[in-house]
Amino acid sequence: MTNPSFSCGRLLAAMRQANPLVQCITNDVAMNIAANVLLAAGASPAMVSAEEEAGEFARIAGAVTINIGTLWSGGVAGMLAAANAANGAGKPWVLDPVAHYATGFRRRVVGELMALEPTILRGNASEIMAMAGEATRGQGVDSGDSAMAAQNAALTLARRYGCIVAVTGDVDFVTDGSRSATIEGGSPLMPKVTALGCALTCLVGAFAASTPDQPFEATIAALALFAVSGQDADGHARGPGSFQPLFLDALSALGSDRFDAEARITMR
Amino acid sequence: MTNPSFSCGRLLAAMRQANPLVQCITNDVAMNIAANVLLAAGASPAMVSAEEEAGEFARIAGAVTINIGTLWSGGVAGMLAAANAANGAGKPWVLDPVAHYATGFRRRVVGELMALEPTILRGNASEIMAMAGEATRGQGVDSGDSAMAAQNAALTLARRYGCIVAVTGDVDFVTDGSRSATIEGGSPLMPKVTALGCALTCLVGAFAASTPDQPFEATIAALALFAVSGQDADGHARGPGSFQPLFLDALSALGSDRFDAEARITMR
Amino acid sequence: MTNPSFSCGRLLAAMRQANPLVQCITNDVAMNIAANVLLAAGASPAMVSAEEEAGEFARIAGAVTINIGTLWSGGVAGMLAAANAANGAGKPWVLDPVAHYATGFRRRVVGELMALEPTILRGNASEIMAMAGEATRGQGVDSGDSAMAAQNAALTLARRYGCIVAVTGDVDFVTDGSRSATIEGGSPLMPKVTALGCALTCLVGAFAASTPDQPFEATIAALALFAVSGQDADGHARGPGSFQPLFLDALSALGSDRFDAEARITMR
Repeated sequence: MTNPSFSCGRLLAAMRQANPLVQCITNDVAMNIAANVLLAAGASPAMVSAEEEAGEFARIAGAVTINIGTLWSGGVAGMLAAANAANGAGKPWVLDPVAHYATGFRRRVVGELMALEPTILRGNASEIMAMAGEATRGQGVDSGDSAMAAQNAALTLARRYGCIVAVTGDVDFVTDGSRSATIEGGSPLMPKVTALGCALTCLVGAFAASTPDQPFEATIAALALFAVSGQDADGHARGPGSFQPLFLDALSALGSDRFDAEARITMR
Repeated sequence: MTNPSFSCGRLLAAMRQANPLVQCITNDVAMNIAANVLLAAGASPAMVSAEEEAGEFARIAGAVTINIGTLWSGGVAGMLAAANAANGAGKPWVLDPVAHYATGFRRRVVGELMALEPTILRGNASEIMAMAGEATRGQGVDSGDSAMAAQNAALTLARRYGCIVAVTGDVDFVTDGSRSATIEGGSPLMPKVTALGCALTCLVGAFAASTPDQPFEATIAALALFAVSGQDADGHARGPGSFQPLFLDALSALGSDRFDAEARITMR
Repeated sequence: MTNPSFSCGRLLAAMRQANPLVQCITNDVAMNIAANVLLAAGASPAMVSAEEEAGEFARIAGAVTINIGTLWSGGVAGMLAAANAANGAGKPWVLDPVAHYATGFRRRVVGELMALEPTILRGNASEIMAMAGEATRGQGVDSGDSAMAAQNAALTLARRYGCIVAVTGDVDFVTDGSRSATIEGGSPLMPKVTALGCALTCLVGAFAASTPDQPFEATIAALALFAVSGQDADGHARGPGSFQPLFLDALSALGSDRFDAEARITMR
């Protein structure tokens, strides 16, 4: 167990400098908070998902993120077009398979998206475990399992699909199939604010866009930025309502030096 | 006029203990705040509405809520599938007929949904009066009438459809056709925050899910939780913007004993 | 360069007195914040966009606003129906051509909407310049140009389409093709909060609804209300997260006299 050999603060500075255009195909609950998270962190979100333009837009975006939270049949073609275009243009894309185990419709669409080989897969423990074929205690969109319980599932998926897998929870776990890291921090209020995980998926896209050759490091930096900002907001929040504006303020205020000093990342 | 014979605090504790999965088919304005209200109060929201999965999901959810605020033709099949599945599985479901009187499209869809006999109908005074065939002063989605003016309409509808009817406003009125109750509290800022009524419909679903045999009491408890939390937030808010985070904090912080002490419910 | 010959405070008082019903066809990111902006300012928002009812509703609304931010093919018919119905009923309507230059789909739909001759066109500098055929530095939905750089484009469009053109940015520019005005104020945090421009489009609709004979003055008043409220919120905000509730509070608290005293409008 060691400290990371790269600087999250430098990745944050590079992301802010690039101000990457991130095409977020996300759910209707997450749209507003995801865009605000990206703006606060220093990226440029664009919620472009229609079949008629999702592929065309993916070619000008720095990264694409796809989230099936409020899946509907008319949205699938745009997701597939964006993923295919990202693959064709060599752009990273991130998949968030929200509650994919809950219905046949979700399982089918997530299967089609996984077949396109996302650069990064981000989910909660129940989602990652279910995707690897393990039993889970997930209920609806909420995980009933801890991220650390999903380590083996994450490794299995990373190797099977050749992607980065990020499992988020009390402690986060990230792996590329050989290297792994855990990230500590955050706040117990975060699961009480809707769609923060979905917003984090978009933020992973922002870091992947500005550091496309290092998706493992980019993913760790995004998760660590959430963890440190969540910790900062936690100290002042009086509940889940006041947490949200404080969290956005913290994302915006965090500088690179303090980020490096506060990030609690362990390489495994 | 008497105090209620049941404890709202006990219903709140039971709801938090159950952490019920509530399937919210709600409008695009309300999605985020409704999910945050449920999380703050202690329930587990899932915004699942597509035709392909709404019925399947309703069988695993504890309750379903349906709101026509941003109605579109592609959304109707999912609403009907979820209501039918809830009926088939003996799960309570709640209908929020937003501005149903405003257009022919809304009147038609609300007619189809009412024919499926919701467990609970929640609306503002103009919506409830219009549904009972009375003249109203509603404009768009905002009520032009007081909840107390809708008492007769609520009684008529409760008896006609065999459902609980909740009319919310300055003072709320709830009836099952024989028993009735009024709930006081809240804040004049609440109508200045969009979609709080829609979020309340989802919260009624949370209480109905954890107390399915007592939908009348569950509805009263949900409305009283909103009223006490609204009052708590009102004391600190400087306007409609600061009210919203304070309200979520108040929903989360309210304990059962204080809830019982502060709820102003009168049985009639 | 002179002060305006009309009182913004009087237009604000008239808007609040009328509490106009504004039909907002806006994007999924903006829905919640746009409705909250209108409620805080004193108008009555209704997010009604479906093909089946958009035209019918436009006839009872005071104004219509149309925004293509999260454009999809199924939404176009409702936009066209609402614009046509507004034209037929002599109601003002406002177009917000979000990132229309980014894809062929957007260019085509914006072309169809412009052919229906909106009363008011509101965009950022890159959007207005691109519509007039000028080169821009827009990236995704964010402007890469200053509003003042778009003055000629705005004049061209105002004359070509016989409409009011509003370009918003650090300094706003409004023209009807002969008269022009600039509005100063606001906060550097405003571009860091998603969809505030989209919400402003809806607020322009509110002022146009209550002052339909003076769309030039109505547009200036809406922009000035945003500028003064943004300035008020800026003094207390610690970042983009805390800015949003403070901004809504400021919109709600601003009185007509202080509005007139603080508005920084220059007629050109």
